[in-house]
Amino acid sequence: MQSQIAEIERTVSRVATALNTPGKLEQHIMPSWRGSMPAPEALRDIVDQFKIVLFPDFFDQLRGCRSMTEARLTVSIERLYRLLTAEMTKCMVASDESADDDTARTRASSCALSLIERFPEIKRMLYTDVQAIYDNDPATEDYSEIILSYPVVQAMIHYRLAHEMVKLGVPLLPRILTELAHSLTGIDINPGATIGEYFAIDHGTGVVIGETCIIGKHVTLYQGVTLGAKNFTLDREGRPVNIPRHPVLEDNVTVYANSTILGRVTIGHDTIIGGNVWLTESVPAYSRVTQHHYQNSNRITTHNPNS
Amino acid sequence: MQSQIAEIERTVSRVATALNTPGKLEQHIMPSWRGSMPAPEALRDIVDQFKIVLFPDFFDQLRGCRSMTEARLTVSIERLYRLLTAEMTKCMVASDESADDDTARTRASSCALSLIERFPEIKRMLYTDVQAIYDNDPATEDYSEIILSYPVVQAMIHYRLAHEMVKLGVPLLPRILTELAHSLTGIDINPGATIGEYFAIDHGTGVVIGETCIIGKHVTLYQGVTLGAKNFTLDREGRPVNIPRHPVLEDNVTVYANSTILGRVTIGHDTIIGGNVWLTESVPAYSRVTQHHYQNSNRITTHNPNS
Amino acid sequence: MQSQIAEIERTVSRVATALNTPGKLEQHIMPSWRGSMPAPEALRDIVDQFKIVLFPDFFDQLRGCRSMTEARLTVSIERLYRLLTAEMTKCMVASDESADDDTARTRASSCALSLIERFPEIKRMLYTDVQAIYDNDPATEDYSEIILSYPVVQAMIHYRLAHEMVKLGVPLLPRILTELAHSLTGIDINPGATIGEYFAIDHGTGVVIGETCIIGKHVTLYQGVTLGAKNFTLDREGRPVNIPRHPVLEDNVTVYANSTILGRVTIGHDTIIGGNVWLTESVPAYSRVTQHHYQNSNRITTHNPNS
Amino acid sequence: MQSQIAEIERTVSRVATALNTPGKLEQHIMPSWRGSMPAPEALRDIVDQFKIVLFPDFFDQLRGCRSMTEARLTVSIERLYRLLTAEMTKCMVASDESADDDTARTRASSCALSLIERFPEIKRMLYTDVQAIYDNDPATEDYSEIILSYPVVQAMIHYRLAHEMVKLGVPLLPRILTELAHSLTGIDINPGATIGEYFAIDHGTGVVIGETCIIGKHVTLYQGVTLGAKNFTLDREGRPVNIPRHPVLEDNVTVYANSTILGRVTIGHDTIIGGNVWLTESVPAYSRVTQHHYQNSNRITTHNPNS
Amino acid sequence: MQSQIAEIERTVSRVATALNTPGKLEQHIMPSWRGSMPAPEALRDIVDQFKIVLFPDFFDQLRGCRSMTEARLTVSIERLYRLLTAEMTKCMVASDESADDDTARTRASSCALSLIERFPEIKRMLYTDVQAIYDNDPATEDYSEIILSYPVVQAMIHYRLAHEMVKLGVPLLPRILTELAHSLTGIDINPGATIGEYFAIDHGTGVVIGETCIIGKHVTLYQGVTLGAKNFTLDREGRPVNIPRHPVLEDNVTVYANSTILGRVTIGHDTIIGGNVWLTESVPAYSRVTQHHYQNSNRITTHNPNS
Amino acid sequence: MQSQIAEIERTVSRVATALNTPGKLEQHIMPSWRGSMPAPEALRDIVDQFKIVLFPDFFDQLRGCRSMTEARLTVSIERLYRLLTAEMTKCMVASDESADDDTARTRASSCALSLIERFPEIKRMLYTDVQAIYDNDPATEDYSEIILSYPVVQAMIHYRLAHEMVKLGVPLLPRILTELAHSLTGIDINPGATIGEYFAIDHGTGVVIGETCIIGKHVTLYQGVTLGAKNFTLDREGRPVNIPRHPVLEDNVTVYANSTILGRVTIGHDTIIGGNVWLTESVPAYSRVTQHHYQNSNRITTHNPNS
Repeated sequence: MQSQIAEIERTVSRVATALNTPGKLEQHIMPSWRGSMPAPEALRDIVDQFKIVLFPDFFDQLRGCRSMTEARLTVSIERLYRLLTAEMTKCMVASDESADDDTARTRASSCALSLIERFPEIKRMLYTDVQAIYDNDPATEDYSEIILSYPVVQAMIHYRLAHEMVKLGVPLLPRILTELAHSLTGIDINPGATIGEYFAIDHGTGVVIGETCIIGKHVTLYQGVTLGAKNFTLDREGRPVNIPRHPVLEDNVTVYANSTILGRVTIGHDTIIGGNVWLTESVPAYSRVTQHHYQNSNRITTHNPNS
Repeated sequence: MQSQIAEIERTVSRVATALNTPGKLEQHIMPSWRGSMPAPEALRDIVDQFKIVLFPDFFDQLRGCRSMTEARLTVSIERLYRLLTAEMTKCMVASDESADDDTARTRASSCALSLIERFPEIKRMLYTDVQAIYDNDPATEDYSEIILSYPVVQAMIHYRLAHEMVKLGVPLLPRILTELAHSLTGIDINPGATIGEYFAIDHGTGVVIGETCIIGKHVTLYQGVTLGAKNFTLDREGRPVNIPRHPVLEDNVTVYANSTILGRVTIGHDTIIGGNVWLTESVPAYSRVTQHHYQNSNRITTHNPNS
Repeated sequence: MQSQIAEIERTVSRVATALNTPGKLEQHIMPSWRGSMPAPEALRDIVDQFKIVLFPDFFDQLRGCRSMTEARLTVSIERLYRLLTAEMTKCMVASDESADDDTARTRASSCALSLIERFPEIKRMLYTDVQAIYDNDPATEDYSEIILSYPVVQAMIHYRLAHEMVKLGVPLLPRILTELAHSLTGIDINPGATIGEYFAIDHGTGVVIGETCIIGKHVTLYQGVTLGAKNFTLDREGRPVNIPRHPVLEDNVTVYANSTILGRVTIGHDTIIGGNVWLTESVPAYSRVTQHHYQNSNRITTHNPNS
Repeated sequence: MQSQIAEIERTVSRVATALNTPGKLEQHIMPSWRGSMPAPEALRDIVDQFKIVLFPDFFDQLRGCRSMTEARLTVSIERLYRLLTAEMTKCMVASDESADDDTARTRASSCALSLIERFPEIKRMLYTDVQAIYDNDPATEDYSEIILSYPVVQAMIHYRLAHEMVKLGVPLLPRILTELAHSLTGIDINPGATIGEYFAIDHGTGVVIGETCIIGKHVTLYQGVTLGAKNFTLDREGRPVNIPRHPVLEDNVTVYANSTILGRVTIGHDTIIGGNVWLTESVPAYSRVTQHHYQNSNRITTHNPNS
Repeated sequence: MQSQIAEIERTVSRVATALNTPGKLEQHIMPSWRGSMPAPEALRDIVDQFKIVLFPDFFDQLRGCRSMTEARLTVSIERLYRLLTAEMTKCMVASDESADDDTARTRASSCALSLIERFPEIKRMLYTDVQAIYDNDPATEDYSEIILSYPVVQAMIHYRLAHEMVKLGVPLLPRILTELAHSLTGIDINPGATIGEYFAIDHGTGVVIGETCIIGKHVTLYQGVTLGAKNFTLDREGRPVNIPRHPVLEDNVTVYANSTILGRVTIGHDTIIGGNVWLTESVPAYSRVTQHHYQNSNRITTHNPNS
Repeated sequence: MQSQIAEIERTVSRVATALNTPGKLEQHIMPSWRGSMPAPEALRDIVDQFKIVLFPDFFDQLRGCRSMTEARLTVSIERLYRLLTAEMTKCMVASDESADDDTARTRASSCALSLIERFPEIKRMLYTDVQAIYDNDPATEDYSEIILSYPVVQAMIHYRLAHEMVKLGVPLLPRILTELAHSLTGIDINPGATIGEYFAIDHGTGVVIGETCIIGKHVTLYQGVTLGAKNFTLDREGRPVNIPRHPVLEDNVTVYANSTILGRVTIGHDTIIGGNVWLTESVPAYSRVTQHHYQNSNRITTHNPNS
């Protein structure tokens, strides 16, 4: 017993020292000491409050009399102001070595207010998304079912909030928010992407929407659709360059399940891309694209063992 | 400082008012004020108790002497009765504008009891699923590993419970339950689908099983399989009609990874669908379907830079 | 009211009895009574502490002065020793009917220490992964963003810890850990797989890496890639045999989105597999594999209704 | 091991049966089955919201801009309305065998509204108490210190809320609330007592104020003071009768530490009762009462062992 | 900033070293390393389960149909068996340097079972206490009010459980349990004291009942009553000797508020001790003891400033 | 239903407005808007960490190998530094209208470090208290029992920490900390009091120690002892003046239960004050003070109804 404890001590101590002796790579990856990272509970709180603000009739467990909705909205927005300022400050401090805390906080406060100014527009956009989802799905006749349970709603709430943050120059936080939605829904939308109103995704697992995508209005995607980059341009140090490299989808485009569209191509408006299509070139408006080889491409052999 | 506070006040107040002035779309989407929505913690509690009831030897942290199992089952079932009645009541009130609370509660209580009556059959079905999963997987020899960690088990527990609710006419709750599983497992089974015993899914991420699917016994799916609709019939108002539109899979069908079967087609019994197959037509029994173009379809170019 | 209570009582009681009368299948699946199962909170605690140990500058909310890092590491490692010993003991008791508790605990303690000994090497490997992810992604210039929000980091932390457990012969726990990551990220890596340093996955949803895969250094995968088994060899009892059946990827291999590689094939080093490739044969080094039929395979029809 | 488990089973089972076979006394004490009891968390929530409503600048962790205070008050009051209605309903059902649930809920809702109507007056009273405590204590110059940390404030908040409930005829809940304060502060005020404005208690541990006490304005008590009953009148069944049996303290009375006043006596206004007084008779206004025997009543013997 | 961090580091490090260098006294007080201490949450869980077992109709939030009470009791008792065994094991290990863990666990398990055997008798005793409290209090007509809110009930539940532990020789845990009640109620009953059935305390704050007290049936105490030791006999090392040193109260004794009875004296049955009595000698049966000097002992001076 | 909702709305709205219209007194009591108040959870965390730092072998649930104690101490102290700085900053901002946040934080950080410097001395003092308690109590032979369960230990931990804060000029926080202990133990020690080493209180409920008390070494108090002020000197505005007004107890003084010592009197060293003594004058060293009138002062009447 005694000797076992001694062994534990020795091991723990030796490993702690080893772990505290950073190798070459770790020295590179280690950030300078700056404040604390965004707190997971704070992020969850932000999203919860934001959902109450957007859909008070669906997410506010204490919702009730209409005439008190404005009071509840005020309280939630004020709370969001505080939460957003706090977490944005952390992100600004963490991503900008030269910033001092006060400057970061002032900038964060100003960003938080600007973001709040855009809430009504974000809300309007999200309601168009809900309507588009409703219009696409024969399996439901109930907005509550959509808003409470459809993964795409969760994903779009995170994305539309995060996208506004990107536009305001907030570092770190937007991606953390969309990856949170990615984890919950399997839908991976880069917060830098631009997505128009009345956007719908069905099922959604495996959808990938890249950073420089531009998506018009009334676009619908199905599960497993990738809007990705075809290849990277590398800079002199061999790092990929961040230039427009993802597709542009104009208005009224529909992309069916598991199709992949790669590179800075443009899918013209009112186009339908069938399932399992692999597309690396632009397509004019009013097109219908299907996988040529999927037409009667299955080899079917049948043998009835009983016959 | 003082002026900053004033600005925050003005912004919060203005935005709260704007958000409380619903636009045209929002008026449409807003439900009438009716009770509260299902509580996430209650749903988690329902699933946890249900897992204890089904697999007391695996999920009950305080499980122990066999002879007390019945007592523990009684307590968990009683608790489920209360939780189910409460959440079903909310869903019935929320989805039926004309219902008064007492009628909803009485109906919910009756549904909860009917659901509980079916627990032994649900349990039997789920044990066949576990057995089928075990029989398909060379990577494990341990039922505990399957029951505690395989996503398909989680998905099927949610689905089989939710499907019975659908049959009892419970609104909202079934979909919320299966979407919860979707979020946890990446497996998206519509609670309306009909699935026979000894059902197995391996890996599972990206699987989609549509609302009107009918799946026989001893069917196995792999990751990324879609059993979907090909296209929708629209009604006069332009909304898709909810008619049978997803595949029928007869007994002993296996569908390998990333294949897509669309429309009201029938896959005959004892059929194997290979990987990446795109299928929109029926297939007779005892068939073997593979992607014609996947046979030797890869263009492989090799160049050894050293040579 | 009174009669309703009586009905509830009768139903609950009858169902409890029925559920406590195991059918034939259930008797098979039911484990013998042995201790308790791994506790979800303990697992979360293990992963959280492990993340603090590996990335103290990113995950430790109370991180601060450099000179105290070693103290914090010591405390976290000691805590991990206790948590790991406790959960491993449960798993060893649960999976080995003949083991008595003390033997299991002694073995678990010894495994926990051996695992801790490997922390510095696990850490080194994970830092190479972070570097590889960074080098592949034009969308970020920030290690914090990667470590805090990229799903692949989460998946690799779970996998690399779980894989060392597999090597130490720990039952049950490794798979539970990787399935936890699977649920959070949609990336399904079997803990038995062997993966070299500088491993990167982008987006990740739907990636499946089978139990007997061997992956070299500097390998990159994209979303939806399957490294799976082609078919199983069955033993005399009809159960699939656990033999090498998944691909070998040599160094510097890249596999683009949604490609599927099946069976014990070898992908030679410095090879690029394009998107949507279906591959069941080996490929020599320095190859470039693309789907033949994806080259210009789309049928595009365009009609401008206005023209 | 096996035999030990059997013994546990036998014991648990035997004891459960014994405990479920109520003796004569237990049959008497056992209530009929009626709903559920007040939930401790709900009570804590009620008190917390009530404190925010009364002292928004002290207890609201998210308090901030003045102009939003009304919104926050509205939200808290609405929440209190719901919480109070729910808990009062339980108490009304539990204490009145004949009441059906709907009647109880209607009555509870009406009581909750009436109670809320009185919040401004309760608040006014409590602010006079705070002022009186401030005026009596040389150890503080800070209202925050008093409101956040003095036990008497906690006790008076509970009492003044509970007392209004008593006046509205709410069963059970008032006493539960004051006993909660008793547990936290050592101050035991029966919610039936009547207490005027500007009431102060210093230190407070051991203070007892009986159900039928009537206390005027500007009264101050010190620790250990009992305002109790001298003896009980018994009814025909030998149960004590609930008639006025506790003291009346007129305005401007001060009672110093550990004094005991028993029976329906009247302490005239502007009277000071010294410490350790035992009083069972009325006292006219402008009196000063001290323990006769405490004047020089100590026997002091001194011996210096060194001398 | 940098220098401040350095100062923090230096201070923390210096103080940690100083605190880790135990002085003479600390070496004396420091226990040898043995397992862990009782966990506060486990203790709270024990008391909560025990309350459900004793008063299922009052404390079980999910209580309901009578016919399921036995199932609920079984589950709670089994849970208590586990909790008690775990915490008692810790206490036995902590208090007996020579004990090995397995011996302690076996002893603890046996103690837990013996304790459970006594639950029906403990329950019977506690119901007599509730009845006695009810019979003494004109302020209530409701058993629910007493059981849910009266501090004496809380104190007696803890005491009667702890006292049985003392009789079984369980170290540490009994005192921890009664001090927990002391903290909640202000009633300090040493678990070693012997207390007969139908025991009541009113208000209770400040009541002290010493370790060797023997209290008969139908005894009632009021707030502030001390049943204490007069003085200690010291052993050769100057430590006080643990011999009978507290009062014996025979049946039907009542002691009014703030009276103090010290030493191994006997208060004969059917005796009433008035308030504020100081008693250090035995009293025969059927006595009535009052403070001589409290009769008309108040010096009352009155002056009407207006006259 | 609809009209009821309207009534709720009207009431809530009217009351919110009324509560938001501060009366004269409320305007006085309302603080200016400055930051947030100390968070209860932070305070609990501070005390918990402080207990781990002082008694690592008793309160650290993860305590273990001796050689890692210093690491654990380092982590806890660093955490305390952060918690203390945060809460002290709030208190400094809240109590000093003119202070800006940065000045407050700098001062708080400096106070926190100074406080940490004193931890070894606070620890030494507290170990003398534990020893004194041990030496006074025949009912225990176990330091664990004392440290884990005796209320006086809890009270002294809070007091000795708070007293050092008073000496450092920290506002608000010290009193909040000692009132927290007051609530838990019934022992009310003003943090301004000065208390020497080897201080013991037995039972403790109702003990009051005033702000300007000076207590020497080896002093022991029993339950219900008040060391209070006799009367107040008022300043010109009628507020009591904060001057020395509580007793001085020299070394080796013992005060038995329920005695009251008032005013700036000096109790000479090696003096014993008996129970229930009322003392408002100084007493020389080596004295023994008893209540004259308690000697044989009971009126005992006995009547045997059977004789």
